[in-house]
Amino acid sequence: MGRIVHITRRERFSAAHKLWRNDWSDDQNFDTFGKCANPNWHGHNYELFVTVKGPVNPETGFVADLKEIGDLLKSKVISKLDHKNVNLDVPFMAGKLTSTENIALAIWDEIVSDMNGLGCTLHCIKIVETENNYIEYYGD
Amino acid sequence: MGRIVHITRRERFSAAHKLWRNDWSDDQNFDTFGKCANPNWHGHNYELFVTVKGPVNPETGFVADLKEIGDLLKSKVISKLDHKNVNLDVPFMAGKLTSTENIALAIWDEIVSDMNGLGCTLHCIKIVETENNYIEYYGD
Amino acid sequence: MGRIVHITRRERFSAAHKLWRNDWSDDQNFDTFGKCANPNWHGHNYELFVTVKGPVNPETGFVADLKEIGDLLKSKVISKLDHKNVNLDVPFMAGKLTSTENIALAIWDEIVSDMNGLGCTLHCIKIVETENNYIEYYGD
Amino acid sequence: MGRIVHITRRERFSAAHKLWRNDWSDDQNFDTFGKCANPNWHGHNYELFVTVKGPVNPETGFVADLKEIGDLLKSKVISKLDHKNVNLDVPFMAGKLTSTENIALAIWDEIVSDMNGLGCTLHCIKIVETENNYIEYYGD
Amino acid sequence: MGRIVHITRRERFSAAHKLWRNDWSDDQNFDTFGKCANPNWHGHNYELFVTVKGPVNPETGFVADLKEIGDLLKSKVISKLDHKNVNLDVPFMAGKLTSTENIALAIWDEIVSDMNGLGCTLHCIKIVETENNYIEYYGD
Amino acid sequence: MGRIVHITRRERFSAAHKLWRNDWSDDQNFDTFGKCANPNWHGHNYELFVTVKGPVNPETGFVADLKEIGDLLKSKVISKLDHKNVNLDVPFMAGKLTSTENIALAIWDEIVSDMNGLGCTLHCIKIVETENNYIEYYGD
Repeated sequence: MGRIVHITRRERFSAAHKLWRNDWSDDQNFDTFGKCANPNWHGHNYELFVTVKGPVNPETGFVADLKEIGDLLKSKVISKLDHKNVNLDVPFMAGKLTSTENIALAIWDEIVSDMNGLGCTLHCIKIVETENNYIEYYGD
Repeated sequence: MGRIVHITRRERFSAAHKLWRNDWSDDQNFDTFGKCANPNWHGHNYELFVTVKGPVNPETGFVADLKEIGDLLKSKVISKLDHKNVNLDVPFMAGKLTSTENIALAIWDEIVSDMNGLGCTLHCIKIVETENNYIEYYGD
Repeated sequence: MGRIVHITRRERFSAAHKLWRNDWSDDQNFDTFGKCANPNWHGHNYELFVTVKGPVNPETGFVADLKEIGDLLKSKVISKLDHKNVNLDVPFMAGKLTSTENIALAIWDEIVSDMNGLGCTLHCIKIVETENNYIEYYGD
Repeated sequence: MGRIVHITRRERFSAAHKLWRNDWSDDQNFDTFGKCANPNWHGHNYELFVTVKGPVNPETGFVADLKEIGDLLKSKVISKLDHKNVNLDVPFMAGKLTSTENIALAIWDEIVSDMNGLGCTLHCIKIVETENNYIEYYGD
Repeated sequence: MGRIVHITRRERFSAAHKLWRNDWSDDQNFDTFGKCANPNWHGHNYELFVTVKGPVNPETGFVADLKEIGDLLKSKVISKLDHKNVNLDVPFMAGKLTSTENIALAIWDEIVSDMNGLGCTLHCIKIVETENNYIEYYGD
Repeated sequence: MGRIVHITRRERFSAAHKLWRNDWSDDQNFDTFGKCANPNWHGHNYELFVTVKGPVNPETGFVADLKEIGDLLKSKVISKLDHKNVNLDVPFMAGKLTSTENIALAIWDEIVSDMNGLGCTLHCIKIVETENNYIEYYGD
C-alpha cells in the first residue's frame, strides 16, 4: 500500500445567518449570542477546507481526484449554502443553531460516506468564518 | 506646506443583504441579480479601505491621526453595518439598492465632510466584497 | 449621469513560460533573463485584476454586470492562458516575449473594445506574477 | 529535556510541470489528468512549508536554527525546483509522476535524514499548489 | 457528551525584541543569533492563534464563547505584549530568551488553567513571526 | 516609444521604532502618540512596495530589470532598515519622527534619482505597517 498523504480542497460560500433560539426570550438570545443575534440577520464569506487522506495511487500519483472532490462538494455542500440563509434555506441545517461548529459537523455528516467512494477517508472539516476565527472537526 | 501623502485605514463588517427591487417582478429580479436576489438574504465579510490625503504635519509626522480616523469610521460607518442587514437596518442605505457600488457611495457621503475636520481630504472608498471583486470610488 | 465608480474583477491562471529570444545566443538570453530563461520552462499562478469604470446605473446599482465581465474574461483570456504555455499555446502572445508587461498589454488589447459593449470603460489590467512583483497597465 | 515545539519554515518555488504517463495513450492521459496534461506544460507558484519538531534548547531558546534549515532547503530543494521543469530538470523527480503528492514525498526523502543533523525531527511537508488545494505528508 | 470540535481565535501584537544573552560575549551573541541580536532591537507584527477544544454545548452550539476567549487573551496576553518590548516590558518573559518558541511556551503557561474555566481545553498556541516562519506548541 | 507600464516590487523589513519627540514632555508624547510612544520601543513587519513606470523596452519586454531594482532596494533601503531600530540605527531617518509617512518620504528621497539610472521613473512608495493601515507617496 502507498504512503499516506493528506490533501485539502478549499471552497467558499457567502451566506446569511443569525444565532437565535425560538424557545428563548429575546433577552436570553441577546445575552448569549450578542450581535450575532441581530433579528434581521448578518452574513459572512465562509471558507471551507476539506481534508481527506489515503495512500497515493501509484497509477496516478493521486490520493484522490481533486476534481471529483470539488464536484462532490459543489453539489452536496456549496450549492446548498452559497448565497443562501443558513437558518432558513439549508436542508441539512434545519432546526439547528447555525454556529460555525454546527455547520462543520453537518458538512462532515453530509459527505463522510461519499469520500469513501472516492478512495479516501475524510480527515477534517475546517470552516473559517472571519479572519479572526475558525473551526476544525476531525470526526471525534 | 508639507509633501502630500495618502494614508489608508482598513475596517471590516459582516453583513447580510440582497439585491432586490420591490417595483420589479420576481422574474425581473432573478434575471438581473441572479443568486444575489435570494429572497432570504445572503451575506459577506466586507473589507472597507478608507484613503485620505494631505500634507504631513511636521509636528507629528502624521497626515492625520489614524486613531481619530478609526474612531470616526467605527461610530459613523462600522457600528451601522457590522452584524446588520444592509437592506433593513442601515439608515444611510434606506431605499437604496444594496450593491457594493451604492454602499461605497453612501459611505463616502457619510464621512466626506468629517474628514476635513481631521485635517485631511477623503480620497477613496474601497470595498472588497469577496476575494474576487472590489469597488473603488474617488469622488467623481 | 451617475457618479463614476471603479469595479475590479479577479481571475487566475496557472501557466508555463520562459523569457527567451530565438535571435539571440544562449549566453545573451541567460545574461538578460537569468533563471527566467530556463530552456525547459518554468511557471506561475498568475492573478489577473481587471478594473473597469463607469457611471452607476440607477436601475441596477451596478457599473456593469460582474457576471458578464467574468464570462468575457473566461472566454477571451483565461481559457487561452490557464494550464497553457504562454510562449507556445496562446494566440494573442504569438511571436512576443512573454514578460508580464507584454501579457498585460496583450490582455488589454484583447478586451478593451468588448468592455464598451458592457457599458463601461477598461481602466487597468493588473497581473500579479509572484507575491513580490506585479504589473499595471492603464492604457497609456 | 525541554518541552517539544514545532517550527515551520516557508520557502517558494515557481516551476513548470505536466501530469503525463508515456506508457498511456493521449486519450488515457487527458481522461485522467484533464487540463493538467497539457502537452506544452503549465506551471505554478508552489509554497513549501517544512515543519520540524524537537525540544527547545535552553541555551538558545531554539528548537533548531531557522537559518540552517533555510540554507538546507535552499541547497537541497529550492535550487533544484525553482524556475525549473519538475518533469525534466529535477533529479529527485526523475521517472515519477509530478503530482503534488509525489513532490511532497520526494522532498521528505531528500531532507529527512539531514534534519536529524540539525537537532530536530522532520514532522510535515506541506505544499500549496494553488490557493484552492494543498498536500501534507507526515511520514506515514 | 457532544462531539469534540477545535476552535481557533486569532489576535495580533506588534512588539520589539532582541535575541541576546547577557552572560555571553558580543561575539557569541552575534554568532548565534545573527541579525536578531541587533543591540538596539528590532520588531515584528506577531500573529497569535489560540486553539481550544471541547464538546459542542447543545444549548448554544458553541465549544466556548469566542468573546470570552478574546477578552481573556486581551487582558492576560495582548495587553502585555502589544506595542511593548518583549525583553524589557513583559512580566511573563522576564529573564527569558525572547525566541518565538519561548513566547509560545510562556503564553501557554499564562492561559492554560483559565481555559478550563471557559469550558474547554487549550490545544495549541501558534505564533507567526513573519510570513516565512511560525511556531506551534501543543503542551508536550 | 513603447507603451507606459507600471511595475511594482515588494520587499520586507522587520524593525523597532517609537514615536517620540525629545523636545516634548512625556505627557505630550503619550497624549499625541499613545501606545506608539512606549519608551522601550515596539516594532513591525513592514512591507515596502516600490512602483516604477516607463515604456516597455521592445528588446526585453521589460520596463526595467526587476533584479536590478531588487538589488538597489536591498543595498540602499532594506539593509539599512531590516532588523534595525528606525530611530537609532538608520542614517536616512536621523533626527526625524519615525512615522510611516516619514519613512516613505525618506525612502523616496534615497532612491528617486537611482531609478532614472535604471531606465524608469519612480512612481510610488507604499509602506504597509500593519494589516490595517498603509501609506502611499507619489512624489507630490
